[in-house]
Amino acid sequence: MSVMEVDLHKLKVSDPFLGQYQQLVRDVVIPYQWDALNDRIAEADPSHAIENFRIAAGHSQGEFYGMVFQDSDVAKWLEAVAWSLCQKPDSELEKTADEVIELVAAAQCDDGYLNTYFTVKAPQERWTNLAECHELYCAGHMIEAGVAFFQATGKRRLLDVVCKLADHIDHVFGPGENQLQGYPGHPEIELALMRLFEVTQEPRYLHLVNYFVEQRGTQPHYYDIEYEKRGNTSYWNIHGPAWMVKDKAYSQAHQPLAEQPTAIGHAVRFVYLMTGVAHLARLSNDEAKREDCLRLWNNMAQRQLYITGGIGSQSSGEAFSCDYDLPNDTVYAESCASIGLMMFARRMLEMEADSQYADVMERALYNTVLGGMALDGKHFFYVNPLEVHPKSLNFNHIYDHVKPVRQRWFGCACCPPNIARVLTSLGHYIYTPREDALYINLYVGNSAEVAVGNETLRLRISGEFPWQEKVTIAIDSAQPVQHTLALRLPDWCDAPQISLNGVPVTSEARKGYLHINRRWLEGDTLTLTFPMPVRRVYGNPLVRHVAGKVAIQRGPLVYCLEQADNGEELHNLWLPENATFTAFDGKGLFAHKVLIQAEGVKQTSDKPEQQSLWHYDRSPATRQTQTLTFIPWFCWANRGEGEMRIWVNEG
Amino acid sequence: MSVMEVDLHKLKVSDPFLGQYQQLVRDVVIPYQWDALNDRIAEADPSHAIENFRIAAGHSQGEFYGMVFQDSDVAKWLEAVAWSLCQKPDSELEKTADEVIELVAAAQCDDGYLNTYFTVKAPQERWTNLAECHELYCAGHMIEAGVAFFQATGKRRLLDVVCKLADHIDHVFGPGENQLQGYPGHPEIELALMRLFEVTQEPRYLHLVNYFVEQRGTQPHYYDIEYEKRGNTSYWNIHGPAWMVKDKAYSQAHQPLAEQPTAIGHAVRFVYLMTGVAHLARLSNDEAKREDCLRLWNNMAQRQLYITGGIGSQSSGEAFSCDYDLPNDTVYAESCASIGLMMFARRMLEMEADSQYADVMERALYNTVLGGMALDGKHFFYVNPLEVHPKSLNFNHIYDHVKPVRQRWFGCACCPPNIARVLTSLGHYIYTPREDALYINLYVGNSAEVAVGNETLRLRISGEFPWQEKVTIAIDSAQPVQHTLALRLPDWCDAPQISLNGVPVTSEARKGYLHINRRWLEGDTLTLTFPMPVRRVYGNPLVRHVAGKVAIQRGPLVYCLEQADNGEELHNLWLPENATFTAFDGKGLFAHKVLIQAEGVKQTSDKPEQQSLWHYDRSPATRQTQTLTFIPWFCWANRGEGEMRIWVNEG
Repeated sequence: MSVMEVDLHKLKVSDPFLGQYQQLVRDVVIPYQWDALNDRIAEADPSHAIENFRIAAGHSQGEFYGMVFQDSDVAKWLEAVAWSLCQKPDSELEKTADEVIELVAAAQCDDGYLNTYFTVKAPQERWTNLAECHELYCAGHMIEAGVAFFQATGKRRLLDVVCKLADHIDHVFGPGENQLQGYPGHPEIELALMRLFEVTQEPRYLHLVNYFVEQRGTQPHYYDIEYEKRGNTSYWNIHGPAWMVKDKAYSQAHQPLAEQPTAIGHAVRFVYLMTGVAHLARLSNDEAKREDCLRLWNNMAQRQLYITGGIGSQSSGEAFSCDYDLPNDTVYAESCASIGLMMFARRMLEMEADSQYADVMERALYNTVLGGMALDGKHFFYVNPLEVHPKSLNFNHIYDHVKPVRQRWFGCACCPPNIARVLTSLGHYIYTPREDALYINLYVGNSAEVAVGNETLRLRISGEFPWQEKVTIAIDSAQPVQHTLALRLPDWCDAPQISLNGVPVTSEARKGYLHINRRWLEGDTLTLTFPMPVRRVYGNPLVRHVAGKVAIQRGPLVYCLEQADNGEELHNLWLPENATFTAFDGKGLFAHKVLIQAEGVKQTSDKPEQQSLWHYDRSPATRQTQTLTFIPWFCWANRGEGEMRIWVNEG
Repeated sequence: MSVMEVDLHKLKVSDPFLGQYQQLVRDVVIPYQWDALNDRIAEADPSHAIENFRIAAGHSQGEFYGMVFQDSDVAKWLEAVAWSLCQKPDSELEKTADEVIELVAAAQCDDGYLNTYFTVKAPQERWTNLAECHELYCAGHMIEAGVAFFQATGKRRLLDVVCKLADHIDHVFGPGENQLQGYPGHPEIELALMRLFEVTQEPRYLHLVNYFVEQRGTQPHYYDIEYEKRGNTSYWNIHGPAWMVKDKAYSQAHQPLAEQPTAIGHAVRFVYLMTGVAHLARLSNDEAKREDCLRLWNNMAQRQLYITGGIGSQSSGEAFSCDYDLPNDTVYAESCASIGLMMFARRMLEMEADSQYADVMERALYNTVLGGMALDGKHFFYVNPLEVHPKSLNFNHIYDHVKPVRQRWFGCACCPPNIARVLTSLGHYIYTPREDALYINLYVGNSAEVAVGNETLRLRISGEFPWQEKVTIAIDSAQPVQHTLALRLPDWCDAPQISLNGVPVTSEARKGYLHINRRWLEGDTLTLTFPMPVRRVYGNPLVRHVAGKVAIQRGPLVYCLEQADNGEELHNLWLPENATFTAFDGKGLFAHKVLIQAEGVKQTSDKPEQQSLWHYDRSPATRQTQTLTFIPWFCWANRGEGEMRIWVNEG
């Protein structure tokens, strides 16, 4: 079943909520990140990313500085700019981006190679350390930027650069005798080449992805071969010499993908890889790879996914742990991993047309992805805990990776530009335009034009999602268009009501989508009502970290308790089983957001620090009622440092 | 108030429970450890400790092998042998020990210096790296061994060796121009020199301890001075270059002791240091140092002590964390730290005659210390968690330090010989013979002779502690002795009953001890009844890790649930608030031990792995009654690998 891509030119986000985020990305994040890339943020570690390109291009003298994958920050910024230009043209920004693209082009070697670390610092070491050195990863991000910039502006300059780069890579890698039989330590090139294939229809790119995927994890192991060939040298020594080479599961290379039973290793690597594999499986009609995607998705979504849409439950290796091991306070749950999860979900949706993927995508978007950025657009979380006790963070090293408030730009700055690019390309996630139907995955307010055969379906989604239950979809096409609209019925909604021009639609849903086939006329109006009562969420009995506890969700939003509203000792608050909830409009920082209150109980005592540590009797006068105030978790830590927790004692 | 030391010759442990442990130490642990020190345990890492002494003595050729503190294993073994010989003479064992002592003497340098690492491997580097290299620590352990062997056998050979060593150290360290103004990175020499002072009455040893204690943490910092002097080289690089030098709080050297507000850093270092300081404070009548002891004890005991008597709540640095941060699963709680805690408590008791110190000592002994050794005497825990989920241990690196079952001898083998020496010297903890009274701290069955002025008080404690509530103390002195017996009233016992020759004693207790002054006659019999109902223990409200949970204790013993009795998913078991307990005698492995059962509830569902990870409604049919079986925590993990937890959901 063929799937088109939404043309982001023809989609305008008008959502009052996410629209603000897009505006924040345009007005604050993109300019701020531009300053960061140019080392103009006084209080942040220098990035040096643009300067590295200048040096590689011969426009400047100096040494490479930064992470081995520093180039990718520039690529992700370019991609965000591209998508932002679709939303709102900005000639000055476009001019700046054009200049960066010229700089990138100038930094490209004659043979197509493009990577400032190796060009400037270690030109003899090109392609000698795939396991550790992110060359193919950086290439992938630049390819994504090239595709995006072409799609956004029609300009081929960067697209030509990345085609030349991709051709070079296709020349270097493959089964041939004079080729390298390698594949990336950090997947990304796979999903990028699939996008390039879609734009260029060059089959070599698809074949190269297939080669990378099938070569992965085979024996004799390429990481060992290249390690020996370069004299057992190692770039990263954080966890001991050559740990990235040795711990092959870290990069999902311990065995062929077809044999891997579970989501494993570095969470970002996993979802990036699987995004490419799902895209490849669909476009090459590869049933075996589709099965791999289903199996690994299921393991992740059914056993290793936080309620927040976070993945990667441990700091060591920023990695998955094992089934049902989901600690709330020592969790990693990198923002980038949830962005990658949205990308993986998007490709699964395109392949399967099953709303379970959109449910996860929505969970990730409205919780961890939005939560990764402060409401001011200038501060970011890399790690997204579900429970924080600030007083312990500086003392217990199991919390070394956890920050109690969002930080400015990071030394390893993958998350901020990644958040920017996903928020500016939301249109790709809202719709899946399949041949059989236009699938509507997310109820983000927008107006869009989608090609249906030779015709154009114009539609407009409006509402106050995720705060209000009503969503309206209006048809604006001047000419009637025969097509199916497939409306996702969210998993969190027990009793959705859909009406067309006031008449209830009663057709049955398939795989979570309600299909309405019709000759759509201008003025047709679908009214969707997704009742949003406050719901109690429980964990699977195998998740020991939430036994006896409950989480609060309304619509797709997971809520939490913060110290600012509820005082210290959040662990001593109880939500009675019969407590009723009041949802109400917030004020100030929480204006246009819905907060929740319930009567709870606090079990504590006066001056506990004067009491013994362990005592033999429960003192009788320790229970007092207290109003519990829940805020949407994505906007925690916007009021300074304090305790936070999602999972609350129940009983 | 002067305090004598119990002469372990004149004390025979007859306790049916701890006596078995002493026998295990004699019959299994000491011979096994002797084999280990001589590298005769096939499946364990080689120790090389005896061979190192042979090489240093010139009796053998080769290189030093092992930890920089490998010598201390030999010293701790010698100390355990000494105390064991007091309990039960063994001429063959004594002959072996004498040979080891000759070997140690032969390894001593002419100037008194004694350390095989430096003698063999780096003779030019003596005393150049106090922060990292354990020279004074090893010296301290050998001094303890020398004192013990002299006290046990009357033989001065090792005592003379360690006096020569102590004299050498006294010569090297001090305020003089040609002396080093340093102090140990790992405290131990302080407590050892205090013991040597008590035996020899040589005041230089006490003054040297005082110097080490007062010099500690002063500026300019000695660790930095010696680091610079030796050209910034570092022995340990585990947590980065010279981390032991830089992280001065790790060894309680970040500021002078008088200014330290909390128990901090490496837990073993802390309690070893404080053991010496408390001894010093008492014998030098130093009120300021006494205040330091009280302040730091109180912080530790009231805010950083596990219910098991474990200390050190994090793996990183095997260290304290901060007030009330007491995680159950990622805890360190090293066996040696609880042994050190018993030593610290002993010295506090000698100074304060307050039962709170004995309560902690008993808690540590009957839970973490006993728990550190398997019932077979051949397997040991270094780390003592309060909750284990074996399925997650190999996947989540926050558990890298946790073992689900006890291991044989360790590469860094501090714990096994430490357990052996404390179990063989129990007499030092049972009694505190003060001038005003004989304090009875622990109700371990034994018969003892204690000097009272020129007379000798003979007494015999019997019973089935900690299993049965009744303890009998019988006086065996042929001649009447006028003295006070001070009987500890355990904090876990609400209604102790004491009778003398059948007549209830009604005098009031002072600082937790019931004082009975009398002319004690042969045949006098004290009957102590310490009712041992099963008690529920709760955490201070500031301990977030146990909110809503309860622990079970009977007498001094903390109980736990194990998978072997209760199935998997221990986190899904609930103990109702009104559940009643049945205590009963165990069988097989648990013969002569009391187990506990209660009717509980299991909240789970059939085939949870087939269900969603997060679900919106509590399914109704998930509660079923289940008998909960609690075993004494110290004997967990004697039936293979399985889940374990002390803190159980209540409600």
